[in-house]
Amino acid sequence: MKGANSMNKNTRNAAIVLAFGIILWFCPVPEGLKVTAWHLFVIFAATILGFILQPLPIGAIALISVTFSAFSNTLKLDEALAGFGNSTIWLIICAFLFARGFIKSGLGRRIAFVIIKLIGRSSLTLGYAITLSDFVISPATPSSAARAGGIIFPIIKSLSSALGSEPGPTARKFGAYIMQVEYHANAITCAMFLTAMAGNPLSVELAAKTIGIELTWTSWAVAAFVPGMISLLVMPYVLYKLYPPEIKAMPDAKGLAEKELSVMGAMTRIEKIVGCVFVGALVLWATSEITQINATVVAMMAVCVMVIFNVLTWQDILQEKGAWDTMFWMGSLVALATALAKSGFIAWVAKSAGAVIAAAGLSWITAFSILIIVYVYAHYGFASVTAHISAMYAAFLAISVAAGAPPLLAALAFAFLSNIMIPLTHFGGAAGPIIFGAGYVTQGEWWKLGFILTTLNVVIWLGIGGVWWKVLGLW
Amino acid sequence: MKGANSMNKNTRNAAIVLAFGIILWFCPVPEGLKVTAWHLFVIFAATILGFILQPLPIGAIALISVTFSAFSNTLKLDEALAGFGNSTIWLIICAFLFARGFIKSGLGRRIAFVIIKLIGRSSLTLGYAITLSDFVISPATPSSAARAGGIIFPIIKSLSSALGSEPGPTARKFGAYIMQVEYHANAITCAMFLTAMAGNPLSVELAAKTIGIELTWTSWAVAAFVPGMISLLVMPYVLYKLYPPEIKAMPDAKGLAEKELSVMGAMTRIEKIVGCVFVGALVLWATSEITQINATVVAMMAVCVMVIFNVLTWQDILQEKGAWDTMFWMGSLVALATALAKSGFIAWVAKSAGAVIAAAGLSWITAFSILIIVYVYAHYGFASVTAHISAMYAAFLAISVAAGAPPLLAALAFAFLSNIMIPLTHFGGAAGPIIFGAGYVTQGEWWKLGFILTTLNVVIWLGIGGVWWKVLGLW
Repeated sequence: MKGANSMNKNTRNAAIVLAFGIILWFCPVPEGLKVTAWHLFVIFAATILGFILQPLPIGAIALISVTFSAFSNTLKLDEALAGFGNSTIWLIICAFLFARGFIKSGLGRRIAFVIIKLIGRSSLTLGYAITLSDFVISPATPSSAARAGGIIFPIIKSLSSALGSEPGPTARKFGAYIMQVEYHANAITCAMFLTAMAGNPLSVELAAKTIGIELTWTSWAVAAFVPGMISLLVMPYVLYKLYPPEIKAMPDAKGLAEKELSVMGAMTRIEKIVGCVFVGALVLWATSEITQINATVVAMMAVCVMVIFNVLTWQDILQEKGAWDTMFWMGSLVALATALAKSGFIAWVAKSAGAVIAAAGLSWITAFSILIIVYVYAHYGFASVTAHISAMYAAFLAISVAAGAPPLLAALAFAFLSNIMIPLTHFGGAAGPIIFGAGYVTQGEWWKLGFILTTLNVVIWLGIGGVWWKVLGLW
Repeated sequence: MKGANSMNKNTRNAAIVLAFGIILWFCPVPEGLKVTAWHLFVIFAATILGFILQPLPIGAIALISVTFSAFSNTLKLDEALAGFGNSTIWLIICAFLFARGFIKSGLGRRIAFVIIKLIGRSSLTLGYAITLSDFVISPATPSSAARAGGIIFPIIKSLSSALGSEPGPTARKFGAYIMQVEYHANAITCAMFLTAMAGNPLSVELAAKTIGIELTWTSWAVAAFVPGMISLLVMPYVLYKLYPPEIKAMPDAKGLAEKELSVMGAMTRIEKIVGCVFVGALVLWATSEITQINATVVAMMAVCVMVIFNVLTWQDILQEKGAWDTMFWMGSLVALATALAKSGFIAWVAKSAGAVIAAAGLSWITAFSILIIVYVYAHYGFASVTAHISAMYAAFLAISVAAGAPPLLAALAFAFLSNIMIPLTHFGGAAGPIIFGAGYVTQGEWWKLGFILTTLNVVIWLGIGGVWWKVLGLW
């Protein structure tokens, strides 16, 4: 019966998306827009609605959208396929493959246990240990679900079990706290590096296509560093106070980590290679403005080295379904969004909304603040960061700039907060279902803590971040 | 020890490829060529050598090549990645996904058994039945290995076993004959449709980039029809005479097919959908010059329909490793070959060789005949059609045209014969190892029959085909 229900639900959702698209398609074209621009917008909007309702997986919806856009001559075939050869898409594809090597080698686990061994003396320091572990591996793991779910989750789950903290009556002993710490840490680290979350390059691409702002790997990392570090320092402590674990001292953690490390033995050849590739890629990413080696080329080199040294077999590459899924949905979106920006649609929206804001006599700071608050809390309505960025980033950014906000400031703020908003709900990011699904935290607790900490982080990133970006001369 | 040996062999082959590339890279650039054109050629040549020696899978070699070309600034990053968004590549990716639905549905098997039931009265008619089956499904199965190995092979293997013909003393009763028929039929059908072999679109792409000839799905099918049908009619009979099966009459085949069909039962919903998609795609491909719907868009639509009607799940799509492997090697090759043609390298080769031919006083017919014979029999040295096309197609085509051969004639002849040459050896095409590996035919027999039938087919395709193309006004 459940299968039949979900089939009905999918059919219903598909009908909604189709009806929405068909009705809009035949609506009169608004004054000042070309027919093609309007049709592109309709395809784009229906795609986003499809991403939200998901009558089919988002990759399938994206494929249908580009196919229809080529079939209907809204886009030329080359334009429709251009996203699949886009360098930003290939940065993410290669980063997915890179992360596969990272997970396969076991280096991520080792790093986490070493950090626990070094600083895991209490629940609070363990919170910091997990936060630090997530941070260290984040630049090479754009799948936040792989980072939180594949590397960190098994560790905190087994730590909790070892401490006798299971879902249910013993959840609050330790498990509930550490699960929350990881989910919040993961969202913050997502915001800190261009390569730490699959959707970040989409923001970069949209900023370039919509308002002509180029965000590099380095400029992203530098701008995010100060607010990110403050968030990472503040969060475990605030959670410790708001949602205290019953176990405070933790004399056993060090021994447990030592035991796991001794089971792992000495670093393997593969771990050493992955370590070198990781450090090498970080150095090349960080110095790309000096060396002029594009971030995508760095990621491609990292994958090549892993294949050459047999860290990853070619079969591992071909089997990395996350990479191909991302290629489909993100490649299609990039193609549509690029064409939408070129068609003049976004500029038209921004101009129209800008005129309304000007007529209302709002300063850019007021307008920008309203826009960004709406943007962040709208995440209650999204089950995916990607859908959210796709739906709102370009338009909100363009309107902000039209209202007078400094372009680079606005581009960065929306890009960073696209990650900071993740913990609002338990379904708002890919790692949510894994960690929430472990059953340590109730939905009520999750949403309450999510609201408080997200709001705190918004203040940190816009307030302290804003000052830092002023110091950097970004606005 | 075998593992260590193959490791050593791979290391040795990698060293050969690297040394070859490095030495050429630092050679003096020939007069009349830009440095970039020379470097591109070196990367291209080393890639082809890598495809032949295979120290790593060809997809990995292709990735390393485009990465190096971007890293060394021989190509801009966008140029290096352009192949992955190329419409020809996506035709093949979608055709792979399409074929997955075909195999999954069981429709291919059913078609083969229906044909056996209808015309399988003797060994000879069974030979025609298998030939016809391969022909019918070929336009939708660009993986000739999937067609021969995935759909037809299990049928002829079980037919042979049912008739008491196993590898060894009983091989010649029936199995050896039918295995040879299928391998030859497969090669001929490969030549008959643009979408019947993964490498065909590469020829199309190279013809467009090298001499500006556009081959469409329809023009390919029309030009191949007459010589293809003649080859398909002649081949089973010639094999029947040269390599006769001991069993001639076959009263049981019909009953066997009926039994299999009754086990399969009525056509399933999925088979019906696949059947409609298949017919629909064929009609749209065949009429694409009237409807102006690009062949790639048709293939994309076919995949979308299969996903919408749940013939293929999205997981099936993401798991279709053959598609991603082809994307890597062929996307990279297309990027390199496009850039090589643009750089003037091919034109330079053709001009130089053309001057030699002119100086020797050869007519274009003599020059073209020599070139095409060398091209076909050079296949003894290749373990892959793709490597062969990549290595020789563009240059041989350009030289032929420079020597005065009509461009369209030359483009088609090299493209068709790239398939016709497959049966020369047991390793010359992807289906070879499967069918040869079944053990019914010795290598000596295989090579002898391969030489005779390939030569016969070359005569049919160039002779009768040449007349047909003249009738069509192609030259």
